[in-house]
Amino acid sequence: MANSETPISFSRQGRDIATPVIVDLMARALANPKLLSLAAGFTDNEVLPRELVGRFAAELTQAGLADEPLQYGQNQGRQRLRELSCAAIENHPGEQQNVFDSAAMFVTNGSQQALYLAVQALCDPGDIVLVEEPSYFVCLEMLKGLGLRPVGIPCDETGGILADGLAERLRELDAAGERSKVKAIYLVSYFCNPSSRCLSADEKRAVAKVLLEGGYQIPVIEDAAYRDLYFDAPHLAPSIISMPEFDSFPKLYLGTYTKPFATGLKIGYGYCTHSEWREKILCIKGHQDFGSAHFTQAIIERVLESGLYAGHLARIQKHYGRKAHILDSALAEGGLREAGWKWTAPKGGLILWLRAPQGMDLRMESEFCQGCIDQGVLYVPGDLCFPDGKPWNCARLSSGALPEAKLREAAGRFVTQALLR
Amino acid sequence: MANSETPISFSRQGRDIATPVIVDLMARALANPKLLSLAAGFTDNEVLPRELVGRFAAELTQAGLADEPLQYGQNQGRQRLRELSCAAIENHPGEQQNVFDSAAMFVTNGSQQALYLAVQALCDPGDIVLVEEPSYFVCLEMLKGLGLRPVGIPCDETGGILADGLAERLRELDAAGERSKVKAIYLVSYFCNPSSRCLSADEKRAVAKVLLEGGYQIPVIEDAAYRDLYFDAPHLAPSIISMPEFDSFPKLYLGTYTKPFATGLKIGYGYCTHSEWREKILCIKGHQDFGSAHFTQAIIERVLESGLYAGHLARIQKHYGRKAHILDSALAEGGLREAGWKWTAPKGGLILWLRAPQGMDLRMESEFCQGCIDQGVLYVPGDLCFPDGKPWNCARLSSGALPEAKLREAAGRFVTQALLR
Repeated sequence: MANSETPISFSRQGRDIATPVIVDLMARALANPKLLSLAAGFTDNEVLPRELVGRFAAELTQAGLADEPLQYGQNQGRQRLRELSCAAIENHPGEQQNVFDSAAMFVTNGSQQALYLAVQALCDPGDIVLVEEPSYFVCLEMLKGLGLRPVGIPCDETGGILADGLAERLRELDAAGERSKVKAIYLVSYFCNPSSRCLSADEKRAVAKVLLEGGYQIPVIEDAAYRDLYFDAPHLAPSIISMPEFDSFPKLYLGTYTKPFATGLKIGYGYCTHSEWREKILCIKGHQDFGSAHFTQAIIERVLESGLYAGHLARIQKHYGRKAHILDSALAEGGLREAGWKWTAPKGGLILWLRAPQGMDLRMESEFCQGCIDQGVLYVPGDLCFPDGKPWNCARLSSGALPEAKLREAAGRFVTQALLR
Repeated sequence: MANSETPISFSRQGRDIATPVIVDLMARALANPKLLSLAAGFTDNEVLPRELVGRFAAELTQAGLADEPLQYGQNQGRQRLRELSCAAIENHPGEQQNVFDSAAMFVTNGSQQALYLAVQALCDPGDIVLVEEPSYFVCLEMLKGLGLRPVGIPCDETGGILADGLAERLRELDAAGERSKVKAIYLVSYFCNPSSRCLSADEKRAVAKVLLEGGYQIPVIEDAAYRDLYFDAPHLAPSIISMPEFDSFPKLYLGTYTKPFATGLKIGYGYCTHSEWREKILCIKGHQDFGSAHFTQAIIERVLESGLYAGHLARIQKHYGRKAHILDSALAEGGLREAGWKWTAPKGGLILWLRAPQGMDLRMESEFCQGCIDQGVLYVPGDLCFPDGKPWNCARLSSGALPEAKLREAAGRFVTQALLR
């Protein structure tokens, strides 16, 4: 059966695609069992909703349900789950009430698939998607894997979008004759992975204004994967769906039940206000898998319907808040600020974003990164979060997966390496 | 939030994609609740494995499992599930023993996603995939949705591949200068959806021979989704993976736990012998969803590990055999053969393939199809199963979903319409 030597003529996508960085990072972690990973964006096994899933899985496998969860479901996802997900969005601060429509909602294999489908519908190879600097590195890799060009929007040190910088970038694209290639803007606006920063309503308004003034009425994709994972209070800015300034834009809002509930159920969703775009997304999904797992959708639907989701969220918010604090404190107490490192303590999400002193090189191939691996700790090099791979002095640390004692230990190892030089 | 009038510049794929026929068929079915559907390829709620899923879901949500099923899993799928799936293939008649390697196996959202990924890695718009006539209509739509051209392999009346016809088709492609565009051949070789026919080992050997003689050492994709769903005995031909005649071909074998276990868990797999192709498939999967739902994978893994899967299969094989017989008998007893219709009683799968007298038009827009809908029965027009939409006198009837009494009634309605003219 050995035929790997038979040459294949691959597609453009097949030829150009590279192994995702995250795979390489995971391989390194697996090669050294003593390595503590601050890299993986995993959630914490300790707060997975075993009891809820077990209880409703049992209920759902009783005979005689009208909407049989072990049977195929609709390509778009379960109707009731879509309604409940609309209600969940409306429940956030500042959202318009009674306007979210389940017909605009579709269920996917994590919100990542919704993003992939949306981009497939919009972009040909060589097209451009505007992204924050820094942005979600998995998205950047996905875009590059599809032959696309993520183009950065200038941001301040904390990750806040600079409206003037965006305007300037649009003028540059115009001048380069690339206006027609700009197909979408992608914003990670709630506890951004990696910056952990939220965009304020004013900042979002400024983005809308600059885009409109520049004549860029392009699709806006808002990734709200971490929105539920606030520690003390929800972020007050409404989504782009509810903001009148975005009325004329085609919009896609991404939400998920992976990070805030169970990554192992792999259910996320998209809410798309533009019917034609949505139809194309659904056609592509029909070809890709014709619907996400009906059973796991039904489990989440039951949890939402039961009213028990809020209690679960409250529990994990507190938990992840404590873990973020442990990481933040361990870095501070180790003396990292005194050594010139900068960061803002996160108020939500699973990520802490570090800026080392200028001139430091934290890339995967750097001495620093190898030093960390030798110390037994792994992080995501921050250059991966920038479309052009610069600057090199940032690091993404995740407080999500490791148990608290190990999280403290991992932070200590990182500090040790950072203070060596 | 109304912005559907804002024009979007879609991708080539987005522009060209059309709503899948199956969506239209389902909409018609939903619009008339009295309609009995012989169209949908659903499985039967009556034999869904509620007890097994409930039992193992309960076990899996006990705390403290090393390989936590509610957490993210590997992009490629659970290691043990991949091993057990290899063993399941080896367990079929004629397969090589102890050569299937879990490293070549990857888990997907139904085998449909495996097919989609494989095609993404191989084909650019305009490229060609060779398919049987008739072939699986969902695959044909998928190929067209990706801008590809399915090209038919001449088959006999029952769906058996004509080796001479294939050779002739390859010469035609050569003559048209399209050799380099032919990227793969797709074979549905076990209880084919729609023909319900199996390819014999000799027929597969002939395909390999013709391809090699023509210099077409192209990737071969074998779709074995229905292989487990035999009624009385398994089909004796080994898969292409175990046949020495296919040694030099890059190969992908598609299997699934949807149809034979639970469609609602949406777990299938691909077994790919060509390491480079497989790596590209996995990269694309990493971008699309970074792994299928870990929890549903774990449920199936437990069922396989428990040894209870064989008993489940035996039960549903008998069940679907009885239902196929009901459909077959109802058509025969209604006098359809005497009216010039032809078919072969299926020996496995969920599908019965009908050929009406020549000259009849059974397409979706035909009087016959509308007449069936008026009678209250739906089928899949057979022209959808041919790459060039011809002939028009075939119909795909599914015996999978309807309860037995309704299946008999639906067959009766179909016969009534067929004998009207």
